[in-house]
Amino acid sequence: MSIWYDEIHRDSMRFGLKATQTLHSSRSDFQKIDIVDTEVFGRALLLDDLWMLSELDERAYHELLAHPALTTCPEPSRVLIIGGGDGGTAREVLRHPEVDEVTLVEIDPEVIAACKRHLPTLGAGAWDDPRLHVQCDDGAAFLAAAPPASYDVILIDGSDPVGPAAVLFSEEFLSSCASALSPGGVLALQAESPTLHRDVHLDTIARLRQTFEVVAPYYGVVSVYPGGAWSWIYASHGVRHDQPIEARVARLEDATEHYHRGTHHAAFVPPNHIRRALRGA
Amino acid sequence: MSIWYDEIHRDSMRFGLKATQTLHSSRSDFQKIDIVDTEVFGRALLLDDLWMLSELDERAYHELLAHPALTTCPEPSRVLIIGGGDGGTAREVLRHPEVDEVTLVEIDPEVIAACKRHLPTLGAGAWDDPRLHVQCDDGAAFLAAAPPASYDVILIDGSDPVGPAAVLFSEEFLSSCASALSPGGVLALQAESPTLHRDVHLDTIARLRQTFEVVAPYYGVVSVYPGGAWSWIYASHGVRHDQPIEARVARLEDATEHYHRGTHHAAFVPPNHIRRALRGA
Repeated sequence: MSIWYDEIHRDSMRFGLKATQTLHSSRSDFQKIDIVDTEVFGRALLLDDLWMLSELDERAYHELLAHPALTTCPEPSRVLIIGGGDGGTAREVLRHPEVDEVTLVEIDPEVIAACKRHLPTLGAGAWDDPRLHVQCDDGAAFLAAAPPASYDVILIDGSDPVGPAAVLFSEEFLSSCASALSPGGVLALQAESPTLHRDVHLDTIARLRQTFEVVAPYYGVVSVYPGGAWSWIYASHGVRHDQPIEARVARLEDATEHYHRGTHHAAFVPPNHIRRALRGA
Repeated sequence: MSIWYDEIHRDSMRFGLKATQTLHSSRSDFQKIDIVDTEVFGRALLLDDLWMLSELDERAYHELLAHPALTTCPEPSRVLIIGGGDGGTAREVLRHPEVDEVTLVEIDPEVIAACKRHLPTLGAGAWDDPRLHVQCDDGAAFLAAAPPASYDVILIDGSDPVGPAAVLFSEEFLSSCASALSPGGVLALQAESPTLHRDVHLDTIARLRQTFEVVAPYYGVVSVYPGGAWSWIYASHGVRHDQPIEARVARLEDATEHYHRGTHHAAFVPPNHIRRALRGA
């Protein structure tokens, strides 16, 4: 029997997918976890009744979180992923042979176990890649304790700034990122909807500008997120977002669904209302 | 009392907004028309239970339908809009002082009446602009009877290729557009979701390529449409999509919410899976 799973946003909008089968449903120490089969969107993951990803369009999210950082960082040897227990970000990072070591710090081991079992296309070969080290830990505490300049790329793959991921938008956390990042390193984080979470989006940019030399928001579409329009932010101590290394981009283009050399530049063009807000800031 | 209005797509996904008030609900000769007040999306219009627009993000749609054509067409004196009974496209077109005459051909007079009354921000001053001529007629028949080369810009502002708008995606209709367009003219049409209606999107590009010299799909986000990711197609007998007239773009940038000089170019970058499909075609 089919049932609707709806994400309800501000008690006034909802995005629902009809599940043909519920593959997993549990409450971990941190959150409610559901994995369902749907007709149009393939398998999909919800945490606390919010859509995290669907097989149909997860690549629009994971490719954009990973590749702008990975194609511009001069030597992306040591990569840290905070969150990302589904494995999708690790999968994209590990496409780059320049990466020697990926540390994935996910707070909830049940997310990893459920995704490994029911969403095998997400992590794909990443789980077996000897370069991947998984650690189940609090991402904020982990980063606060990380030695200075210990990572070349840091990717923040958290959920919304409520629940367990709220801390990932705090000033303290972003300072930890700045300190743990190598001088030639790049940070990228998901930064909510420029339409429906416009304030969080602009505040996060402003907060990053206090610490980083280069701060560049970028934009895409993730259909299962509220309103579809989504954003990420690129930040560094000087590495430029607009000069991707040609050979790395070329190598990716046969594998990616969304990202390519054109996307790399187009994604950094904000809608006009955000452009105006940033110019005024 | 609040009630949910849901657009259901393929009986397997839904996008719903909770209406705090129903302002209009009727059945015209052509379709069911509903206009509701919502909390996050402002006022919104449904035709046959499909979301057509919301005040929150209608500009993401109307600006992208109108401005790429209007900023590149050398002499956009005579403009034809097929559909567009809400007035949003006419509002954007009339921002351009180069436009001498806009003919808006909407099949359903009840849509115009209801939108004038309940969605005044859509048409705004356009309804009173002496350059606007409204005609309630079948758009396909109107275009088939139009003298050759009688319009400099033609904008197809129809709904999905089911119901009254189905004909707007047919080969015959697109040939009528080609014939009614002046040699220096530009056609733009909405072309569905590149993700959820990928076949319609690619087929429409292929169909246009049989008749037009320049055919360039472009992309944006409209939150109330299925999946959010949306597309339009630019077509001409030789006018280039990638050379907007600087002065016209500059003039718009203080008024627009989404479109600006950066968007003009970024919008024409397809996702990689579409890029590959077009290259192979």
